[in-house]
Amino acid sequence: MSVPFGHKFKETYFTYLDKAVVPINHGSYGTTPTAVLDEQKYICEQHEHYPDKYEYFEAASKYIEQVKLLGDYLGLDYHNLALVSNATSGINTILRSFPFDFSKDKILFHSTSYGACANTVKFLHDYYGLQYDVVDLVFPMEDDNEILSKFEKKLSSTRYKMCMFDMISSMPSGQLPYEELIKLCHRYDTLTLIDGAHAAGQVDLSFINELKPDFLVSNLHKWLFVPKSCAFLYVDPKYHEIIQTLPVSWNYTQKYENKRDLLLNKFAKTGTISYSPFLTIGKAIEFRKEVCGGEDRIRKYQMDLQQQAIPVIIKIFGPGAKLLQNKRSNLNPPGMFNIKLPVLNYNQKYEILLKKMILDGSFFASFKQLCDHKMIYQHKVYAPFSLHNGDLWVRFSVQIFNEIDDYVIGAKIVAQVTSKVLDLELAKLSINDSKL
Amino acid sequence: MSVPFGHKFKETYFTYLDKAVVPINHGSYGTTPTAVLDEQKYICEQHEHYPDKYEYFEAASKYIEQVKLLGDYLGLDYHNLALVSNATSGINTILRSFPFDFSKDKILFHSTSYGACANTVKFLHDYYGLQYDVVDLVFPMEDDNEILSKFEKKLSSTRYKMCMFDMISSMPSGQLPYEELIKLCHRYDTLTLIDGAHAAGQVDLSFINELKPDFLVSNLHKWLFVPKSCAFLYVDPKYHEIIQTLPVSWNYTQKYENKRDLLLNKFAKTGTISYSPFLTIGKAIEFRKEVCGGEDRIRKYQMDLQQQAIPVIIKIFGPGAKLLQNKRSNLNPPGMFNIKLPVLNYNQKYEILLKKMILDGSFFASFKQLCDHKMIYQHKVYAPFSLHNGDLWVRFSVQIFNEIDDYVIGAKIVAQVTSKVLDLELAKLSINDSKL
Repeated sequence: MSVPFGHKFKETYFTYLDKAVVPINHGSYGTTPTAVLDEQKYICEQHEHYPDKYEYFEAASKYIEQVKLLGDYLGLDYHNLALVSNATSGINTILRSFPFDFSKDKILFHSTSYGACANTVKFLHDYYGLQYDVVDLVFPMEDDNEILSKFEKKLSSTRYKMCMFDMISSMPSGQLPYEELIKLCHRYDTLTLIDGAHAAGQVDLSFINELKPDFLVSNLHKWLFVPKSCAFLYVDPKYHEIIQTLPVSWNYTQKYENKRDLLLNKFAKTGTISYSPFLTIGKAIEFRKEVCGGEDRIRKYQMDLQQQAIPVIIKIFGPGAKLLQNKRSNLNPPGMFNIKLPVLNYNQKYEILLKKMILDGSFFASFKQLCDHKMIYQHKVYAPFSLHNGDLWVRFSVQIFNEIDDYVIGAKIVAQVTSKVLDLELAKLSINDSKL
Repeated sequence: MSVPFGHKFKETYFTYLDKAVVPINHGSYGTTPTAVLDEQKYICEQHEHYPDKYEYFEAASKYIEQVKLLGDYLGLDYHNLALVSNATSGINTILRSFPFDFSKDKILFHSTSYGACANTVKFLHDYYGLQYDVVDLVFPMEDDNEILSKFEKKLSSTRYKMCMFDMISSMPSGQLPYEELIKLCHRYDTLTLIDGAHAAGQVDLSFINELKPDFLVSNLHKWLFVPKSCAFLYVDPKYHEIIQTLPVSWNYTQKYENKRDLLLNKFAKTGTISYSPFLTIGKAIEFRKEVCGGEDRIRKYQMDLQQQAIPVIIKIFGPGAKLLQNKRSNLNPPGMFNIKLPVLNYNQKYEILLKKMILDGSFFASFKQLCDHKMIYQHKVYAPFSLHNGDLWVRFSVQIFNEIDDYVIGAKIVAQVTSKVLDLELAKLSINDSKL
């Protein structure tokens, strides 16, 4: 812990990261410390050193060793954890092996659910007839009670077999009252499938022990410094037998005598894969403990820097900019927050474009694509924006290698690039789009 | 091509492989040339260099670039190819997104189908009610006609929606008359799902263009020198819309205007994953072309060495040993063959144990586990055996880095270890198992 967090820390421990990049979008794909990536490369070599030995005798026990380290670190019983490629794979694992009664079962999720997960439900609807319903969430909600009552309105009106909800939504980012949502679902005898894609490495997960959700998944490559890609799946012991690996493999017909180790053994080997991201979990945890000084120290740095960055970005974005926040001020996890980009306020004509974006998803997508490309290729500074509730919200990530300057540069570039692209689009409109 | 195939070649181009290992089991997990593994490590670094740029703008186009290289090399239209983690994942991709009518559809596979693939059908039976039937195959069949007539007997008696069959079975290894099986299924209006796990890098795949199977999967990490793990999936254009990625992801609701590129675009990005094995395909092909001198040269070396090795191993195994072969002598692909280990012939008492293995799957499994462990840990020489048709068959793999000595050492170790473990089991029996 001799190197302080910030740029010096980045230069020391994240040497694979392009030095010219201002990394303020950690939330999308994570970044990997040099020591952890080197471990991954070493594991790839070890796999090739003697593939028979590795596959027949070592991979499964090494996998279990890592799950144990993860359980210890998160304060969870490792017998209930399985490693999968990413949160989407984890959600698919559950949804596509849970034995729904397609003739009547119904699942509930929310409008800000991650697209890939919502799509998995839609797929099960389209291909197998699973019914679903959506809770419409529009950020910022007044407070947690508003969210809970929206869910309860649905849960109390119809019987839902399962409810899928986020811990921390992705775009815009925002924490949901996940503990209360678990209790609510329990009251209505509805199973809980929790997408904690952004959870591990940002928030404490030991509530699982007390509240006992049915299923929960969290990426480890986003905030826990494991390389791409790795996530863990929590499965309540009631379902260790019924939930199957994705893909279904040899293990499906395997007899496992020890029921307590069933989930561990079933997921330890699902065919020939690269175990290399899974097997670096211990190294990532070691980095967080020994180099970073533990979760509390990490979160404190993130929260402090977030508090500093918010007013600075608002000032740069100009009149009309504001933080996405609710009345209880509990929307933001340590690593992410959203600021409204006040398009309307600095040029009335932009209103036309904003309306077009709201009405035409593909126009928004191509506008975003153009902005993203400019930010990434011309400036090496990128923060993603989304269209939510009629406004553009920019999501900023905070990591232990950031300093306040990153947000000064970031906010300026985001504002400059979007305004430039909006001008270009406006010029095109005046020539081509006589309707507007 | 200045370094000749054999040990010198191994020492030059497969430097990650433990020098003390005698690698005669390439068929299980493959081995990766140093240049290709180094490329993978470099790709992992590139991914971390600027994750936003890599994920948003580069990964998908790099993926498509590799699929194109693969299509060119295999002589297949790359628009019909998708990359997946391994053959089991490919089979799962098809079986778990094909819109079966579970109230009536029936699928046919064979008793020597790979366990993980057969299990996926069983899973669909247990969870969704898909019906299935099994063609009982016992090697060696007389010739291809015997296999075909066994399939035809089933196909002509009931309507099967789909037939899943191997190109080259795994344990024991043996080529099926896959071209004739495709034609047969076409005649009975049955879809073909072909498990070519061992195909790419061993046999020519251009028959796909003419015979147009519906679905085919082949590993690239087994015989094509791509690192673990990577496979390709061939999907007939009729099914590009209906087949979905595993996991279902963002792409599910994406609108793709160009139908020809639909499969490519849909599979190019299924979430945050490590693209590193996929993106080394070009490097592996370059190695096969430029360092190895192409597929024909590779196969010729394998076939010649196989012919040399067979009588040598038979002699070491002793009386009763024989090659698994049919009357047309077309059972063996270039890289694999099986020799019967004549347990009965050198000690009559072994008959008791062999019968016990046949009757008690878990006894066989623990016997095999013990032998495998001894071979791998004590001798670093390993060839897997299986129990088929009442006999023990040892599968040997042939790769361009092998020489005849490897099989002399290998055969001796296999015979010595199994006989030692059989003796141990026999000693235990005389004390504990009074029933026998």
